[in-house]
Amino acid sequence: MSVFPKFLVCIAIFGILAGGAATLAQSADPLPSWNDGPAKQAIVNFVRATTDPANTQFVPPEERIATFDNDGTLWCEQPMPAQFYFALDRLKVLAPQHPEWNTEEPFASLLKGDLKTALAGGDQALLALLVATHAGTTTAEFEQSVKEWVATAKHPKTGKLYTEMVYQPMLELVAYLRANGFKTFIVSGGGIEFMRAWAEKVYGLPPEQVIGSSMKTEFEMRDGQPVLVRLPELNFNDDKGGKPVGINQHIGRRPVMAFGNSDGDREMLEYTQGGSGARFMLLVLHDDAVREYAYGPAKGLPDVRLGAFTQALYDQAKKNGWTVVSMKEDWKHIFAFDK
Amino acid sequence: MSVFPKFLVCIAIFGILAGGAATLAQSADPLPSWNDGPAKQAIVNFVRATTDPANTQFVPPEERIATFDNDGTLWCEQPMPAQFYFALDRLKVLAPQHPEWNTEEPFASLLKGDLKTALAGGDQALLALLVATHAGTTTAEFEQSVKEWVATAKHPKTGKLYTEMVYQPMLELVAYLRANGFKTFIVSGGGIEFMRAWAEKVYGLPPEQVIGSSMKTEFEMRDGQPVLVRLPELNFNDDKGGKPVGINQHIGRRPVMAFGNSDGDREMLEYTQGGSGARFMLLVLHDDAVREYAYGPAKGLPDVRLGAFTQALYDQAKKNGWTVVSMKEDWKHIFAFDK
Repeated sequence: MSVFPKFLVCIAIFGILAGGAATLAQSADPLPSWNDGPAKQAIVNFVRATTDPANTQFVPPEERIATFDNDGTLWCEQPMPAQFYFALDRLKVLAPQHPEWNTEEPFASLLKGDLKTALAGGDQALLALLVATHAGTTTAEFEQSVKEWVATAKHPKTGKLYTEMVYQPMLELVAYLRANGFKTFIVSGGGIEFMRAWAEKVYGLPPEQVIGSSMKTEFEMRDGQPVLVRLPELNFNDDKGGKPVGINQHIGRRPVMAFGNSDGDREMLEYTQGGSGARFMLLVLHDDAVREYAYGPAKGLPDVRLGAFTQALYDQAKKNGWTVVSMKEDWKHIFAFDK
Repeated sequence: MSVFPKFLVCIAIFGILAGGAATLAQSADPLPSWNDGPAKQAIVNFVRATTDPANTQFVPPEERIATFDNDGTLWCEQPMPAQFYFALDRLKVLAPQHPEWNTEEPFASLLKGDLKTALAGGDQALLALLVATHAGTTTAEFEQSVKEWVATAKHPKTGKLYTEMVYQPMLELVAYLRANGFKTFIVSGGGIEFMRAWAEKVYGLPPEQVIGSSMKTEFEMRDGQPVLVRLPELNFNDDKGGKPVGINQHIGRRPVMAFGNSDGDREMLEYTQGGSGARFMLLVLHDDAVREYAYGPAKGLPDVRLGAFTQALYDQAKKNGWTVVSMKEDWKHIFAFDK
């Protein structure tokens, strides 16, 4: 007997051991950053029921669509969403080419660092900032500017990179659903091309699984090169009633699961629940002022400018059987760095 | 020795044989309906080069995006695209609710079967037909009406179902690319929801891989049910320069391969070629009046109302190194039923 068969036996034994380890890993807790409780249990029960062909709630793989809001659902959106800080930094970069911004609002106040005065202009001020900082370049140039920004920009409170401000329990949830044959999509009011620049690296979501608000673009031959130019005009507002519209436009199927955290997600959850068969809707309530932020105004939590979770939404969630996650109670860890 | 080990040996042998058969099938011609020639060779060479990690032309799996026009590229578009006949049939169904159509053009002529007078109104007449027949319902109702129509509607020349009017060589090509890790998308001037209703069954393409022109939709609670209503307004025209815009919006990556057949596909092919690394562009020339239709006007072929392949496009293809498929020369079979 040469050493060869022995080697093969070793491979066979290693294979059995490795297989055993894999089985063990699969049966281990897929949501380790979630505390045991009704929210975690509801998720696990739903996934088990919808992936079991013998269960009446079984959902065929091609219909397993799960949609996630981004700001406040997958990552931190306070004190302002990351895209706002990106726009602000870009405004400073572009300012030397725009002397008129020194007197025009909201630009003058933004450049002086007076956010309060600037934001007093409401949604119009935010839209003006967006248009001024998100248009004029090609799509490739814009992507590059976002990539450079997220590589270094830090959250004002934690000093962490924005891409570290993602919720560890939600990363585990996305991975758990994907491992169970769900196709996971972001459906966000945020900019589609802003998110796509880093979503693949951070969430493992390819660009075609990221849906968001967008600027109009136009095909152009520029110096003999075919490019898409970003125009200073909003193309689509992927928020509130726009979310089901965006889902239908991009995915073409009604989701089976939907995840959000604010009034902007209400219609997405309603639309998801409106389909036939098993459905799962979840809202994240930010009630942890110590580890993250506490805001509502549901349940008497402080009111905020963006990302409001109203009492009416809370009442609707309770009435409709939507799961409400308490970040304080349901999440063992919030960020990978608070472990 | 009981029968048990023998049974196991049989399984092992069967496994080896089955494995052998699979290897044989994989090495068999993946494009049997294509004649050997430069077009087929160019496709196979490109796929081999871009999927071989040792080749300088290698393309990572996540970047293997291939986009296909639909009408005239994947299925027959003459004498008029199927969606036109769908609209015409729907006009007749809806006519009793619209007595005004008996005098209004293009409806009056269309209802009388006088297509020539109706189409003299040009694109405006077609748009009016589209809006009148594609709006007013929910997205679910519209999908149902398309499904019912394609189940029975027949092509006016061949008498075959429209879903049988798909090009067998292109079905093989889509399957071949998919087997090699390419993600295949339809990018068509046709209606996105018209195509999605049957594309999964006919092409194996899930709705999120179908991009097309669309009507505006609006989220609404109707009788307590959350629905999307189709509005009588064009949302997006996915043709010419709109194709790269639609690709960027839905896929968020520049394709590596693009397939078309008319001037409406020019910008998609230019945009595809404009990326760095290996690229493949192909146009189907309809030069087979016997087995399908012959139209150009490139190469002196007859001119047509829709789907024109101009001489300028033909010259650009030759100059830019795009592959031009002659249906007459390059395709052994055109439809599954002409085998």
